Amino acid sequence: MDYGLQKLSEEKVFKDPVHRYIHVRDQVIWDLIATREFQRLRRIHQLGTTYLVFHGAEHSRFNHSLGVYEIVRRMIDDSFSGRPQWNDSERLVTLCAALLHDLGHGPFSHAFEKVFDLDHELFTQKILLGNTGVNEVLRRVAEDFPQKVADVIGKTYPDKLVVSLISSQIDADRMDYLQRDAYFTGVSYGHFDMERILRVMRPAEDQAVIKQSGMHAVEDYIMSRYQMYWQVYFHPVSRSAEVILVKILQRAKVLSEEGYTFKQEPVHFKSFFDKTYDLADYIALDEYILMTYFETWIREDDEILSDLCDRFVNRRLFQYIDFNPAKEYRKLGELDVLFRKAGIDPEYYLVVDSSSDLPYDFYRPGEEEERLPIHLLMRDGELRELSRESDIVDAISGKRRTDHKLYFPEDMLKEGKKKKVLRQQILSILNT
Amino acid sequence: MDYGLQKLSEEKVFKDPVHRYIHVRDQVIWDLIATREFQRLRRIHQLGTTYLVFHGAEHSRFNHSLGVYEIVRRMIDDSFSGRPQWNDSERLVTLCAALLHDLGHGPFSHAFEKVFDLDHELFTQKILLGNTGVNEVLRRVAEDFPQKVADVIGKTYPDKLVVSLISSQIDADRMDYLQRDAYFTGVSYGHFDMERILRVMRPAEDQAVIKQSGMHAVEDYIMSRYQMYWQVYFHPVSRSAEVILVKILQRAKVLSEEGYTFKQEPVHFKSFFDKTYDLADYIALDEYILMTYFETWIREDDEILSDLCDRFVNRRLFQYIDFNPAKEYRKLGELDVLFRKAGIDPEYYLVVDSSSDLPYDFYRPGEEEERLPIHLLMRDGELRELSRESDIVDAISGKRRTDHKLYFPEDMLKEGKKKKVLRQQILSILNT
Amino acid sequence: MDYGLQKLSEEKVFKDPVHRYIHVRDQVIWDLIATREFQRLRRIHQLGTTYLVFHGAEHSRFNHSLGVYEIVRRMIDDSFSGRPQWNDSERLVTLCAALLHDLGHGPFSHAFEKVFDLDHELFTQKILLGNTGVNEVLRRVAEDFPQKVADVIGKTYPDKLVVSLISSQIDADRMDYLQRDAYFTGVSYGHFDMERILRVMRPAEDQAVIKQSGMHAVEDYIMSRYQMYWQVYFHPVSRSAEVILVKILQRAKVLSEEGYTFKQEPVHFKSFFDKTYDLADYIALDEYILMTYFETWIREDDEILSDLCDRFVNRRLFQYIDFNPAKEYRKLGELDVLFRKAGIDPEYYLVVDSSSDLPYDFYRPGEEEERLPIHLLMRDGELRELSRESDIVDAISGKRRTDHKLYFPEDMLKEGKKKKVLRQQILSILNT
Amino acid sequence: MDYGLQKLSEEKVFKDPVHRYIHVRDQVIWDLIATREFQRLRRIHQLGTTYLVFHGAEHSRFNHSLGVYEIVRRMIDDSFSGRPQWNDSERLVTLCAALLHDLGHGPFSHAFEKVFDLDHELFTQKILLGNTGVNEVLRRVAEDFPQKVADVIGKTYPDKLVVSLISSQIDADRMDYLQRDAYFTGVSYGHFDMERILRVMRPAEDQAVIKQSGMHAVEDYIMSRYQMYWQVYFHPVSRSAEVILVKILQRAKVLSEEGYTFKQEPVHFKSFFDKTYDLADYIALDEYILMTYFETWIREDDEILSDLCDRFVNRRLFQYIDFNPAKEYRKLGELDVLFRKAGIDPEYYLVVDSSSDLPYDFYRPGEEEERLPIHLLMRDGELRELSRESDIVDAISGKRRTDHKLYFPEDMLKEGKKKKVLRQQILSILNT
Repeated sequence: MDYGLQKLSEEKVFKDPVHRYIHVRDQVIWDLIATREFQRLRRIHQLGTTYLVFHGAEHSRFNHSLGVYEIVRRMIDDSFSGRPQWNDSERLVTLCAALLHDLGHGPFSHAFEKVFDLDHELFTQKILLGNTGVNEVLRRVAEDFPQKVADVIGKTYPDKLVVSLISSQIDADRMDYLQRDAYFTGVSYGHFDMERILRVMRPAEDQAVIKQSGMHAVEDYIMSRYQMYWQVYFHPVSRSAEVILVKILQRAKVLSEEGYTFKQEPVHFKSFFDKTYDLADYIALDEYILMTYFETWIREDDEILSDLCDRFVNRRLFQYIDFNPAKEYRKLGELDVLFRKAGIDPEYYLVVDSSSDLPYDFYRPGEEEERLPIHLLMRDGELRELSRESDIVDAISGKRRTDHKLYFPEDMLKEGKKKKVLRQQILSILNT
Repeated sequence: MDYGLQKLSEEKVFKDPVHRYIHVRDQVIWDLIATREFQRLRRIHQLGTTYLVFHGAEHSRFNHSLGVYEIVRRMIDDSFSGRPQWNDSERLVTLCAALLHDLGHGPFSHAFEKVFDLDHELFTQKILLGNTGVNEVLRRVAEDFPQKVADVIGKTYPDKLVVSLISSQIDADRMDYLQRDAYFTGVSYGHFDMERILRVMRPAEDQAVIKQSGMHAVEDYIMSRYQMYWQVYFHPVSRSAEVILVKILQRAKVLSEEGYTFKQEPVHFKSFFDKTYDLADYIALDEYILMTYFETWIREDDEILSDLCDRFVNRRLFQYIDFNPAKEYRKLGELDVLFRKAGIDPEYYLVVDSSSDLPYDFYRPGEEEERLPIHLLMRDGELRELSRESDIVDAISGKRRTDHKLYFPEDMLKEGKKKKVLRQQILSILNT
Repeated sequence: MDYGLQKLSEEKVFKDPVHRYIHVRDQVIWDLIATREFQRLRRIHQLGTTYLVFHGAEHSRFNHSLGVYEIVRRMIDDSFSGRPQWNDSERLVTLCAALLHDLGHGPFSHAFEKVFDLDHELFTQKILLGNTGVNEVLRRVAEDFPQKVADVIGKTYPDKLVVSLISSQIDADRMDYLQRDAYFTGVSYGHFDMERILRVMRPAEDQAVIKQSGMHAVEDYIMSRYQMYWQVYFHPVSRSAEVILVKILQRAKVLSEEGYTFKQEPVHFKSFFDKTYDLADYIALDEYILMTYFETWIREDDEILSDLCDRFVNRRLFQYIDFNPAKEYRKLGELDVLFRKAGIDPEYYLVVDSSSDLPYDFYRPGEEEERLPIHLLMRDGELRELSRESDIVDAISGKRRTDHKLYFPEDMLKEGKKKKVLRQQILSILNT
Repeated sequence: MDYGLQKLSEEKVFKDPVHRYIHVRDQVIWDLIATREFQRLRRIHQLGTTYLVFHGAEHSRFNHSLGVYEIVRRMIDDSFSGRPQWNDSERLVTLCAALLHDLGHGPFSHAFEKVFDLDHELFTQKILLGNTGVNEVLRRVAEDFPQKVADVIGKTYPDKLVVSLISSQIDADRMDYLQRDAYFTGVSYGHFDMERILRVMRPAEDQAVIKQSGMHAVEDYIMSRYQMYWQVYFHPVSRSAEVILVKILQRAKVLSEEGYTFKQEPVHFKSFFDKTYDLADYIALDEYILMTYFETWIREDDEILSDLCDRFVNRRLFQYIDFNPAKEYRKLGELDVLFRKAGIDPEYYLVVDSSSDLPYDFYRPGEEEERLPIHLLMRDGELRELSRESDIVDAISGKRRTDHKLYFPEDMLKEGKKKKVLRQQILSILNT
């Protein structure tokens, strides 16, 4: 029998705290979950360093990937199946793309990509198409099947409806992570009526649309997303941990380039330092490996590397103040000088971090990132862009909000014995 | 001001998905949480290998330790404080013991202790009393304070009421883990009315007792515990992962003793192989370190070590069948011989694992582990042992239940190319 | 098109706090819900007087009936449909029976039936078969369809599997009320993993059975039921209100028989007093009508009727003590005499009430109420009775538990001015 | 001992599904709950006719009143007590006002007040100050205590902080009803982090304010309120039931004025028809009484009264269309004429209903209803009005949203046999 159509003899379920159960009936999905590349996602936190603020947020990308799959499965099987706008032959490629969309994430993705100038979406593509267990399973469906899945994730797939289920302003990815991250952090934001949204979701030509009667559920979803960004994802304390992480990787790179002799050689990082990495190098990495390095590097002779690793591993984070880079650049320059005088390298110990989010936007042609707006399906069959119907969404539409913080090691400034006056001076500048 | 009495200028809270918030007002508690030894608990899963079955169960012992602290804090501040049987000068030592009771757990505790013949309770004592950050904080309260905390955890503390809050058949430890593990796994067991139990809990001479009116809440708690043991803690698939883990460590030890040359030297394990470890060696271990070894050892030349590590890291677990060791030892002997013939070392690939639990027991003097029974406080002030009042508890009291499984690598038996007949024979024995 | 097969043009949903949504696609179900007889269930509390103890328990039988329907719908559509043991032509009759199984309940059912010697199951039958809106809808399906539905509810339907979904020791009725009553009272009992039970439920020849792997979920369900009985359904305070209710109805009947002239004539009750009621009289009753009488009767001249109504309406309930009728009948006789002497009629003011429950039982042929035991479907296809596999269920199987209370108006005894010594004497007997 | 300071010998609790437990320690509160006037609130639905749409919404004002009390108790005992801006001698009056703030609500309040031109707030005052059980309890505290409680509820109490806890844009009343109504309807809106809001609430001179760090929790609360208004409170179907209710009362009044002879005399309404009611008449009313009239009036000869009562009791509601009264008044005039021609009195059967809400507003002096804005307490001690800090609140601030619907009996128009053409014409106008 055609491998792509094979069903398990009995439906398998995974107990999931967010969706109660994840249901798997397709042999292909079952086999993909068992691959090494997919199992690797267990070793990467869904929310990077957030667990250092919300101690419950210790869940992995493995969790989230199953959740996205389950939501897409429900969209298709419960809401779309049997409707003329939905082509059921797209079912398997959509489910595979949902399950695998985060496959290329590396350890502490954000920081890692930033330092080594990588792109996890590119790695997702490479894993799908390269010499991997995932590719082997996908190829058993059809020779061009891996490419199809890659196209859906890369948003170049011809059927835009399929793409929209996984990448749009109201996709399964967001729906899962909002609920899941709310559940594990324990915050009371992040809840919205997904059951209702799934019930009122309809397949349309280029995207999934929402029946007008479900507008309020969508409003609620957008507000949940907004709250999660500012309450959880951009929490200044987890950004502090992230800043330190970036600095550790930068320092290790610099040391390596300068010919420093590590007690614990950065074997796994070498190819990233000199940009010679291949896919296998990337897949070999996870947060267990990175953390093991950080723990070991605490005993390195380089004081900066040792201190930063100690900070990260033992949660001795940087303090922060609100900071407006546009207006306060002079203050930053002044601090830079004083830090150097005090013997604290500002390159590693005085860091501006900015977070920014656009809660919702309608289509603005020509803009940097063209966003597909959410459309309501009116009673008369017409489609209307959400912000034209919803006062609340209209009110926040297109309004980007940005937050800047300046991070620094308050403990060093307070506890240091040498250059006390200088340190006092720095502290007083920071606290005004 | 006396350090032990110092309060934070403003109460701090941790958002907790189980108890909503963890409240900290004492400077000592705040300082303990910041120690390296306590932060290390973030790197040890609360439920070991269970996350390989229940993917949500990725939470750490750090989480649980905060939870136990919070429950004890509520017992004291909300239920006991002001009652004559409660001595408020015991408050701090009780809170510290609650927070620190799991401090000595190692990575994948159960398996690690089994192979290296260790005892995590002993290490908790050593961390409290040794040269550690925790000890330093505790000593600032009073010279003998670390010993006091150690005595509470070791159950030798003179005030038995204090001991019972942390170690008894209805203690804060169990109350937290049942709810927490239920929350993260997503199972519907594990819930009981803790609010009510806390409300009806009263301090008595030697233990916390429960007002008669709360008996049903306690019954429900005992049933929850029973269900969690058999549904979650003893799940045969996570035991399969645990079996493999034990075998990895045993194999590494054997190889080391035999002088095998590791590509990745087991530096962190050396002192455990030859029993020369000290406290620092132990604290240096966590699950990030162990997993890094396992990932690396997949590339070792020793086929058994390599295969077992691959199984653990990539979740290629052993299959199992029900097995009665008392009756089926002949079958086991026979299989042992056939495995050897087939070139599969039964030492590593044919393993009996037994799990056993006693849901509740009243006091049976002279027995192996004398358990403190739960007492009800009757309206007339008399204390009565729970099973004398509750039909349901009486029905299960003292009834130990045991489950035996025989684990083996079904894939090896099925997929192997050599000695096919032999393997078939083994499979047919296993499946009858 | 055949009316019994007609589907609504679009699925309708009811938002339900317990099952999230109730889904209706069949025209017949939709029409039944709209009938007067079904809407009447909104005016009857699901839990009678329990709302006087658990103030949240104000939900009606309308709620519960929808819930039972939804559970049966899920059993059929999600678990049974397509399996050879399930005959899909039984679908509609089963859904109708589920929806309508409580149709014949009267206001404060238990008390009302007791005083007037009625049986709500008989009235369910009469509503199904008599001149009613429900009958009219059912007859449109087929002439014999009302009788079929009546047979399922009356347990005489030939297909015993169908009967078992609604009436057995693990039926949709119990599964809904446990969860629903827990939700509205707010107690933490009553929860069990219904999702799992539905997943492991299988159609068999004479009943629905449970796959062995779901045994623990069933154990949990049985324990939930046990807890709900003793914590909620038999709560002594709501039984106090029930005792008063019974006494109000008895007093009104006696007064009517004695020719007492009511200020507010008991028009609605007349035919029940003299046993001349017909179906229309019965349907005309609900709790709004009864309560209106009780409120009005507070102003009657008869002191007993007036006092009892005031107690019920304004929640001035009787006190109670534990009482063993087998041993303490002498005490009761003595109190009876003293009450009379004190001018308090013991017929209305000294009442023994007994509650009794059997949590689970296997089949005991020849016993009063032969109960269908729960069967597990073992891996080899064999069926085994639950208590033979489950230690916990075995432990409580067949163990009836009974609770007796003696109710009396403590306020009258304490606050009365006349015969103070006598009243003191009564109080001291009651409190020993 | 001073009655106002008396504590119960042991804290009493009510199990509450929303707040888990309601805690009562004050004798005064305990005694108030036991009064007839407070118990009467059990017989008035919290959400009027909403239960006809959301079947779970059968909860009473009794429930809600306890909830408001509990929230205020927590504000005081957990957040305010001990802070200099809070005067603990205001505790009891605040708790009493919280508990009793809805005391004057009549049956189906909104409709009843509209038809008879009453004001429930005035009745709350009368119950507090008149010859009632509540007044008797309050007077035992102090002669002027009932007036004080009345002043808090009437917002004339000098301590504005006290007033703000019960009546402001973020008061205990709203906080309870949002959560409670969400719980009982089962909708997923209405949730917000009350725990956090209580934690960051601080007493200030004229009102309770919110620490800046809690801004997002307040945003979430305001959005919840917005959603509840449009999803639940203004649901067009429950407004349909409300329209019918108003028309029943109007019809009964007209009939009474016209000398119509009722089979069931409207004894309880008489004094409201002719405006001679006193407090006792008002208190005697509840929804059980009203519904009993409606059920009985179905058998009245007046066709309009009979039909409307049948509609309300048996949920045969009016249909509706969107309607813009400003633009479509001509259409309304035309329909009015056609209805008369068709023999359907438009006075009762063609009704425009408008709902309108202002989600949040800052202070606009001189406006109709001056609203106290929510203030944030900034880190530097300054107070800032919420919408100046929150983009989202700013976006919706002061934006009133209104919805108009036109209600009519579609069944009459479709099913009537006479004047078929005319009815067709009406239907076609309505549906364009």
